[in-house]
Amino acid sequence: MICKNVQALTAYTPGEQPKDAGIIKLNTNENPYPPSPKVAEALRTFDVTRLRLYPDPVFMALRRRIAGIHGCTVDQVFIGNGSDEILALCTRAFVENDGSVGYFVPSYSLYPVLADIRGVARRPVALGPGFTWRTPADDAASLFFITNPNAPTSLMHAKASVAAFCRTFRGVVLIDEAYGDFADDNCMDLALAPANTNTLVMRTFSKSFSLAGLRFGYVIGPVALIGALYKIKDSYNMDMLAQVVGLAALDDLPYMQENVRRIRATRERLTAELSRRGWTVCESQTNFLFARPPDGDAARRFEALKAAKIYVRYFPGPETGEYLRITVGTEEQTNALLAALTH
Amino acid sequence: MICKNVQALTAYTPGEQPKDAGIIKLNTNENPYPPSPKVAEALRTFDVTRLRLYPDPVFMALRRRIAGIHGCTVDQVFIGNGSDEILALCTRAFVENDGSVGYFVPSYSLYPVLADIRGVARRPVALGPGFTWRTPADDAASLFFITNPNAPTSLMHAKASVAAFCRTFRGVVLIDEAYGDFADDNCMDLALAPANTNTLVMRTFSKSFSLAGLRFGYVIGPVALIGALYKIKDSYNMDMLAQVVGLAALDDLPYMQENVRRIRATRERLTAELSRRGWTVCESQTNFLFARPPDGDAARRFEALKAAKIYVRYFPGPETGEYLRITVGTEEQTNALLAALTH
Repeated sequence: MICKNVQALTAYTPGEQPKDAGIIKLNTNENPYPPSPKVAEALRTFDVTRLRLYPDPVFMALRRRIAGIHGCTVDQVFIGNGSDEILALCTRAFVENDGSVGYFVPSYSLYPVLADIRGVARRPVALGPGFTWRTPADDAASLFFITNPNAPTSLMHAKASVAAFCRTFRGVVLIDEAYGDFADDNCMDLALAPANTNTLVMRTFSKSFSLAGLRFGYVIGPVALIGALYKIKDSYNMDMLAQVVGLAALDDLPYMQENVRRIRATRERLTAELSRRGWTVCESQTNFLFARPPDGDAARRFEALKAAKIYVRYFPGPETGEYLRITVGTEEQTNALLAALTH
Repeated sequence: MICKNVQALTAYTPGEQPKDAGIIKLNTNENPYPPSPKVAEALRTFDVTRLRLYPDPVFMALRRRIAGIHGCTVDQVFIGNGSDEILALCTRAFVENDGSVGYFVPSYSLYPVLADIRGVARRPVALGPGFTWRTPADDAASLFFITNPNAPTSLMHAKASVAAFCRTFRGVVLIDEAYGDFADDNCMDLALAPANTNTLVMRTFSKSFSLAGLRFGYVIGPVALIGALYKIKDSYNMDMLAQVVGLAALDDLPYMQENVRRIRATRERLTAELSRRGWTVCESQTNFLFARPPDGDAARRFEALKAAKIYVRYFPGPETGEYLRITVGTEEQTNALLAALTH
């Protein structure tokens, strides 16, 4: 009774969520600072009796706000219950049963899982030396996911490279800018260029807005592609509280930007200190570092940090096994991390 | 670039959500009473700083509570971002690309839409005269959705009929008990019977718990089927606020049950009064009535009520076009409805 591709699946393993409050949690790229006070205010003043009613199924107030920020129309904005929902919807809207999903290796580990869930072929494309850009073939896949800046490497692919690929690629390109607010540049204008009929750019509130608990992502792009997502989404995919909280967060962009500034400053300090100790640190454009200890024994540091109650992320394997992915925390958390990384 | 089945889709049209506060809204089966005071308390005391962290991806606290209520294990409980998400996941977990989705006609109008979105065959089965049960063939579909009590008819299919069908049917049966709390009986024990390896029972918080705005549904059934849903769900499909609010609602079952008692009392009064006026009223086991005016001109009453700022639901078509679906509101709303329905 269960589909063959589903039987063959192993569920995606999200980063560990420890229960112990004493743990310094630098393993899932969460923001160390709380969400905006306007979010707290929105929840405190929310009229709970409204919850008896269905939410706006097409979240028009939010789309107007986001369209205003990016200078596009509401028909170019789709919002998902987390950007993960948007990625999954794309595999169903833009990939036929005999199609395929393309992505770089290494990149976000969910992409191949989404291909498996959809029951279509995976089309991994290896990055160049040092995790650098390599242009996929124009028929590399039906749908190609590009995380930019990339995870887990923290590196930014140059916009010119991404733009050239979008122009030649025959399928849909989704540029996943989950970490875009922490970068010097972004590709949003590629999604808004009328000539780019195949290009989507996605953002999330999980990192820069400190709202991983909320599940809020959005995607901008051509009306035809965005319209396809509306056709296949669940009738009410965004609940009323998420809509209220999302609007409140967008009402306080300066607060988010100040947190981003702080995280970038801490990122530069941590990068400099690890480099001074002989680590190879990728030039991060995100809220995490991808860093290799001098002897390449990342697994040992991972375990040692865990014993010291500091959780980071370790991805075994040929491309990533000598690196740790370390979320940039507060200044205090960074001090504790550096103190624990003495050997 | 857009899949053929998606190009052919028309988006599902949810019931109208009017902006005018003066409107009496009896068109989408929302509960006229607010959610439990414990829900308000949970939101007021929620520590917003927690939102910077990801939610529990497998919502274990909620599963424990729901498993306790139904006397099953946590492995038999799956929770969705609204029961609509659960329905959509079932079409992907239990229906191969050459499979099909079965459902009664008339029933929940989303089912054929979900088959179209999944790109598989629709297998409608006409109900008997007066919207009565008719046993589908044992190979009627890969997955069969049964709303019980049914919508829009409000009628309950006898548990013995449903049970006999589950025993012989070769695919998965999902019994959608969205209105189960308003009924005299339910089929939950069919999902828990070890012999029924193909039977799922689903509930929602949208109606009896007055939480349509939240998006919260759950499904109970055999470990193998429930496990398949976990494999294909989005990593974090239930946000932290929904988990907190859902737990608070489950902490106050007596409040929900008292609202159900009130709605059932109003339902009986409205049924008696419409019957006295010559309407044919289906024997409702839900929080709405499905009722035919004496002359069968439901469209005229629909428009007249709308002009009087009372919104009900009208489904044109051969089976349903002589009926109105009227949500049971408060006593005051019911008085207004009866006053407006003089002709």
